Amino acid sequence: MFEKRYPGHSSFFQVRNVHIGKGFTIIAGPCAVESEQALLELAALLNNGAGLLRGGIFKARTSPYSFRGLGEKGLAILEKARENYDLPVMVEFLDQEQISLYAEKVDIVQIGARNMFNYPLLRAAALSGKPILLKRHFSATLDELLYAAEYILELDNPNLVLCERGIRTYETRYRNCLDLSAVVLLKQITHLPVVVDPSHAAGDSSMVEKLALASVCAGTDGLMLEVHDNPIKALSDAPQAITSGQFSQLKVKIERIKSFLL
Amino acid sequence: MFEKRYPGHSSFFQVRNVHIGKGFTIIAGPCAVESEQALLELAALLNNGAGLLRGGIFKARTSPYSFRGLGEKGLAILEKARENYDLPVMVEFLDQEQISLYAEKVDIVQIGARNMFNYPLLRAAALSGKPILLKRHFSATLDELLYAAEYILELDNPNLVLCERGIRTYETRYRNCLDLSAVVLLKQITHLPVVVDPSHAAGDSSMVEKLALASVCAGTDGLMLEVHDNPIKALSDAPQAITSGQFSQLKVKIERIKSFLL
Amino acid sequence: MFEKRYPGHSSFFQVRNVHIGKGFTIIAGPCAVESEQALLELAALLNNGAGLLRGGIFKARTSPYSFRGLGEKGLAILEKARENYDLPVMVEFLDQEQISLYAEKVDIVQIGARNMFNYPLLRAAALSGKPILLKRHFSATLDELLYAAEYILELDNPNLVLCERGIRTYETRYRNCLDLSAVVLLKQITHLPVVVDPSHAAGDSSMVEKLALASVCAGTDGLMLEVHDNPIKALSDAPQAITSGQFSQLKVKIERIKSFLL
Amino acid sequence: MFEKRYPGHSSFFQVRNVHIGKGFTIIAGPCAVESEQALLELAALLNNGAGLLRGGIFKARTSPYSFRGLGEKGLAILEKARENYDLPVMVEFLDQEQISLYAEKVDIVQIGARNMFNYPLLRAAALSGKPILLKRHFSATLDELLYAAEYILELDNPNLVLCERGIRTYETRYRNCLDLSAVVLLKQITHLPVVVDPSHAAGDSSMVEKLALASVCAGTDGLMLEVHDNPIKALSDAPQAITSGQFSQLKVKIERIKSFLL
Repeated sequence: MFEKRYPGHSSFFQVRNVHIGKGFTIIAGPCAVESEQALLELAALLNNGAGLLRGGIFKARTSPYSFRGLGEKGLAILEKARENYDLPVMVEFLDQEQISLYAEKVDIVQIGARNMFNYPLLRAAALSGKPILLKRHFSATLDELLYAAEYILELDNPNLVLCERGIRTYETRYRNCLDLSAVVLLKQITHLPVVVDPSHAAGDSSMVEKLALASVCAGTDGLMLEVHDNPIKALSDAPQAITSGQFSQLKVKIERIKSFLL
Repeated sequence: MFEKRYPGHSSFFQVRNVHIGKGFTIIAGPCAVESEQALLELAALLNNGAGLLRGGIFKARTSPYSFRGLGEKGLAILEKARENYDLPVMVEFLDQEQISLYAEKVDIVQIGARNMFNYPLLRAAALSGKPILLKRHFSATLDELLYAAEYILELDNPNLVLCERGIRTYETRYRNCLDLSAVVLLKQITHLPVVVDPSHAAGDSSMVEKLALASVCAGTDGLMLEVHDNPIKALSDAPQAITSGQFSQLKVKIERIKSFLL
Repeated sequence: MFEKRYPGHSSFFQVRNVHIGKGFTIIAGPCAVESEQALLELAALLNNGAGLLRGGIFKARTSPYSFRGLGEKGLAILEKARENYDLPVMVEFLDQEQISLYAEKVDIVQIGARNMFNYPLLRAAALSGKPILLKRHFSATLDELLYAAEYILELDNPNLVLCERGIRTYETRYRNCLDLSAVVLLKQITHLPVVVDPSHAAGDSSMVEKLALASVCAGTDGLMLEVHDNPIKALSDAPQAITSGQFSQLKVKIERIKSFLL
Repeated sequence: MFEKRYPGHSSFFQVRNVHIGKGFTIIAGPCAVESEQALLELAALLNNGAGLLRGGIFKARTSPYSFRGLGEKGLAILEKARENYDLPVMVEFLDQEQISLYAEKVDIVQIGARNMFNYPLLRAAALSGKPILLKRHFSATLDELLYAAEYILELDNPNLVLCERGIRTYETRYRNCLDLSAVVLLKQITHLPVVVDPSHAAGDSSMVEKLALASVCAGTDGLMLEVHDNPIKALSDAPQAITSGQFSQLKVKIERIKSFLL
């Protein structure tokens, strides 16, 4: 069901007033929601630029001793931000229970890279009826990603966007290798929209702008950007967040490149 | 908590009457339970050789259209096999609900490679109180595997064995690269027992015997072997299963190598 | 010697009348020179677009039974093209003897990806005094690439450009993964110019334009493009060559993106 | 020409009085020849255990500033060791000139992993008429290794042994992943003998014994072991060398495992 049915076939869907797969969609926000004040200030700044607000409240961390998110409390903060700034919100859920308890309160459900092979979670997300952003596992082939998408599509949930976020290679100078070859190819194979997360791939904010613009040229339908106004104090993944000032500048460049490519 | 606390520190635990981490443990069985008759016949044959009976009843499959296991019905078949042949049984669970419903009925819970990064599942398995076999994800570093173990250990469930089952590389001539360097190193770093699954790594039964014996020399505490008496008709992963005849021969060779290494 | 000595430090050099590292350089041509007529026709078409003409005459092929290039005869054809169209020519050499015999006749020496770790060849190329394009091996870390560059720089040959051409991963849907994260990072670390070869990375002409434009945004100093006017009949690497018509269109887009990025 | 022509087909050849491909061959020695005294002492100790003496005199090093070997002087030392202890000697050559100057003086030519794709070097080695040990590149597929072998075989030099020495993966806890799946498979595909170098794969002497014995079970025709009697002072690759005492113990274990496997 993921295959294009005719040349040029591309699907899209709406998350509140925002389209994904039509035009260009920017998803921005902090890796983890940390406080109400910080998130509302950031939402105010993102307001004119980002289509969707992301904010982690349940964090999957390699070590059990790392910060694991604010949970329910973080969700309330996100809802306030949505209310104040009319930004649809995206939250990653880590298990089926979280989906059954909280999916209703968000606008789009994120399935993280670590969970791309977690088929029961994919099914639960699909059955929630919510739109879904599905991240490619850092070692998934494109076929595995597309079959994971199929787990969602076969349950009659067509509101699905794929997200490339870097793959694991032997290189240690950067965190993951952003795979734009995959983006080009996915857009040839599937009608599903594809967005790119350059922040997690790079793991370093100094690389984000160039990789973001490169992604636009590769044909992505949108970008997912980690923004934090005090990156040094971020409780998780600090070095990769850009500031809201950098975000605004990048936003302008993206629009110019996009307009040129039309 | 996974680190050795003193040179030579190694932990072990019991699954019914079988030790893991002390002596050498063989886990054998079909990739998926397919029928009562077939499983009971196989259990009879394994009876004198295998310490534990494995049998998949919930299968994680890349495509949603592949055979996904017998579920509850398969569990009843496994229980019968245990009853008749006094073989402790191991079953892989794919989500928390399966664990809460069925973990009580099995002797050891398997967390599959695809779920090594599924931390809520690791926690649910840990809290079930059952012994756990944790497979290394096909792209996990040793540190990620050890931190996944930590998610279980920190919940006071010490009955844990790690399983190396091959890693993904660029090579396409075999399914995965069996990483015996990892086995050697894991035994240096952690007190936890380590077993090896050469069947899934190779993806081809003709390679299993040699890789199994090599694993013994690398220091594994046990082997997990896929056995199927009619491999050509197996509903999943057919080409990698050895027959019960091959299993018996391999069993003898393992014992001889083990006795030599003592 | 490859490190930037001050922020913004970037080196450049000249190949006849063409700069590398200053402005934007396009290197184009067939994977292998096949006939005088075909090459001259192509050179005529490239004349207004490409800065340098590439053409393989000694081909390193995985199998000894594949077409291995025209050798000396191909060199004569390239020299004719240079004469007629004032295009500097680049040729890959595979051993020291070829360098001592033929380097004089070319304008820039290419060291192919397979030879990045061939240090005696790097030294011979350096000592020829000719400018050098050094391709990253398909499994080289950035540190290994930079140290390979060091083998050339320490012999007082500063006219060196690095070339990213895709790395080997587990993915099989495309030939190699174009590593634009590497390009972004190389431009931060070294003063040396960096170009990108999207043709060899993709292995499929339908992916070349998007990857080429993405490379421009990632900060490359130039592109190396495989162009062939009858790709179906090409004797090596046919599916990845774009036609001269596609090349002309791409050239226009590159210039517009470049002017926008300034 | 590398394919088995009938089931069980396996080729062998002689290096002086030592067979490769028949029985089991041990190649031992220091990574680099450092002094006459040290090498002669080591040769005396290896005398009863190793079939062949290896000793690097031209070293390919990632950085041009590392120790690059004693060159011609080292060769004289090796010749003395051969004379005194009747040990055939193996030397790695890095370019065609070294082969034309020195191949005559050694008993078997080593092509290093970095040069597996260096086809002119393979041809020069083949044409020297000397037996050849060809190491698998750390990122070569088995097909690429076998085609590299073909470059030698098609020049009518049948005295060829392949060497697995670990492949590059994402894991950073050890240097390379020893690929015993490759060894098992190579022995199924090709009639050529295959040896394993666990020392370079592990990069740590504490892993060598277990990996060596595992290799024996995987079906290798021999082992290549780095031995150095003062590993802490070794000028290159110090941490992976075992002492001559450890070597003697390992030798006994290898023989016992081999006798058991017959």
